[in-house]
Parts: sequence; C-alpha cells; structure tokens
Amino acid sequence: MDCIFCKIVAGEMDAAKVYEDADVLAFLDIYPETRGHCLVIPKKHVKNIYEISEAHLQKTAIVGKKIAEKLKKTLDADGILLKQANSKAAGQVIFHYHLHVIPKYEAGEEVGKPTMEDLKKLAEQIKI
Amino acid sequence: MDCIFCKIVAGEMDAAKVYEDADVLAFLDIYPETRGHCLVIPKKHVKNIYEISEAHLQKTAIVGKKIAEKLKKTLDADGILLKQANSKAAGQVIFHYHLHVIPKYEAGEEVGKPTMEDLKKLAEQIKI
Repeated sequence: MDCIFCKIVAGEMDAAKVYEDADVLAFLDIYPETRGHCLVIPKKHVKNIYEISEAHLQKTAIVGKKIAEKLKKTLDADGILLKQANSKAAGQVIFHYHLHVIPKYEAGEEVGKPTMEDLKKLAEQIKI
Repeated sequence: MDCIFCKIVAGEMDAAKVYEDADVLAFLDIYPETRGHCLVIPKKHVKNIYEISEAHLQKTAIVGKKIAEKLKKTLDADGILLKQANSKAAGQVIFHYHLHVIPKYEAGEEVGKPTMEDLKKLAEQIKI
C-alpha cells in the first residue's frame, strides 16, 4: 500500500484526527495553508471525483460542512474555502480523494510546518 | 431581489444553463477562469455553507460530480478543480452559495470574457 491516506486509515501512520466514522475520516493537513486546514477523505481508496461513489461524496460533503462550521466558531475564521482537486493539472498531489476545508483570516494567514503534537492539540478543539 | 443568482433562477437574467431540476441549477460562469467553468447553485437563496441544508448540499455535490465527469470527457480537460468559498475573506463575491467546477488544462488556460452566445453554444456540449 503506497497511499499515505490509506496508511492513516489503517492506523499505520499517525494523524491529528478531527472526525471518524465507518466511511469517512477527517484530519489536519500536515502542510497547512492556514491554521486549522483539514482534509476529509472517504476511507475506501478512490483516486478522485470520477471514482468516488455518490454515497461517499455526499458523506464527505456533510462532514466538510460540519467542520467548516466548527472552524468558523472555534478558530474565529473570517471565511472558509473548500477545495477538491482532481489530477495533477488541477493541483492534486495525493491521489486519494480529499476535500480541503481551509480557514481564511482577513488579518493574513499563519503558516509554517506544525509538529504532530501541535496538530493533535489543535485537533482537540476542532473535533466534531 | 438584489441577488443575481436569484434573478437567474427566476428567469429575470439570462444564463447558459447546463443543468436544472426543482432544487438545483448549474450554468456557465460569465467570468470563467477557464473554458467550461461552471457554477452549481441551490435555487433557494442561502448565502453560504453554514446556511445551506444538508439535502441541498448533497444535491449540489452530485451535480458537481456529474459536471466534472462531463467536462473532462467533452472538453478533454486534464484536471478539474472544485471550489466553494464562504465570506469575502475566502474570496466569495456573490453571496448565494455556489460550487465552482473548473476545468484545468496542462497546456495553459484559455481566458477572456466570452459572449452569452459563446457560452450558450458551449453549454450545449456540457449539458448533463
């Protein structure tokens, strides 16, 4: 298994999880565009929007909405951008379907590479 | 009614439609980032992801997937980017929920402001 998201699903790789059920997993991006940047994935490996089932697409969308609401409230984000890229030409880097939920701040954006400990602490606040 | 998307829904403003049902409308963006750039909206006016119902969120997501598949096939797009912005800080300009479905081309992107006639011709190819 070469897919790092599948490794996270299988528990073979660590992640700062914010949501999990039988079909969907959400966790903090280790290379966040901003503080609180989350990814929502179907546990089943599918590369992109062409491959994902309608049921899993709908489930990831609902989890994305709930995380957007929580990020807005908890981190006091001024806006939330949702993004989902398909193929390299669209900016996809990990070829396992993922929906980005990205807080945006008018005052500018906090960047940098947080530690897993930082992310896990943040995940506690964001958990839905 | 000041919302231009509500005017399109009501038939008071023209649009190059690619899909319509009782709850959802999809049409070509008049300021496209690339050729084939579509917007999917719930007909009911809601500002953003916080206000949209789960049912309408799911319906717009499914229509977005079908349009992504159609754009890839019909326009031979190398990738598709889906985006949905909430609040000015995230880049939202029209305050009626809309999901962008944007074809991406490795060779670069066609831009410019097409005429409504251009868009309607293109919509015929993209219709789902």
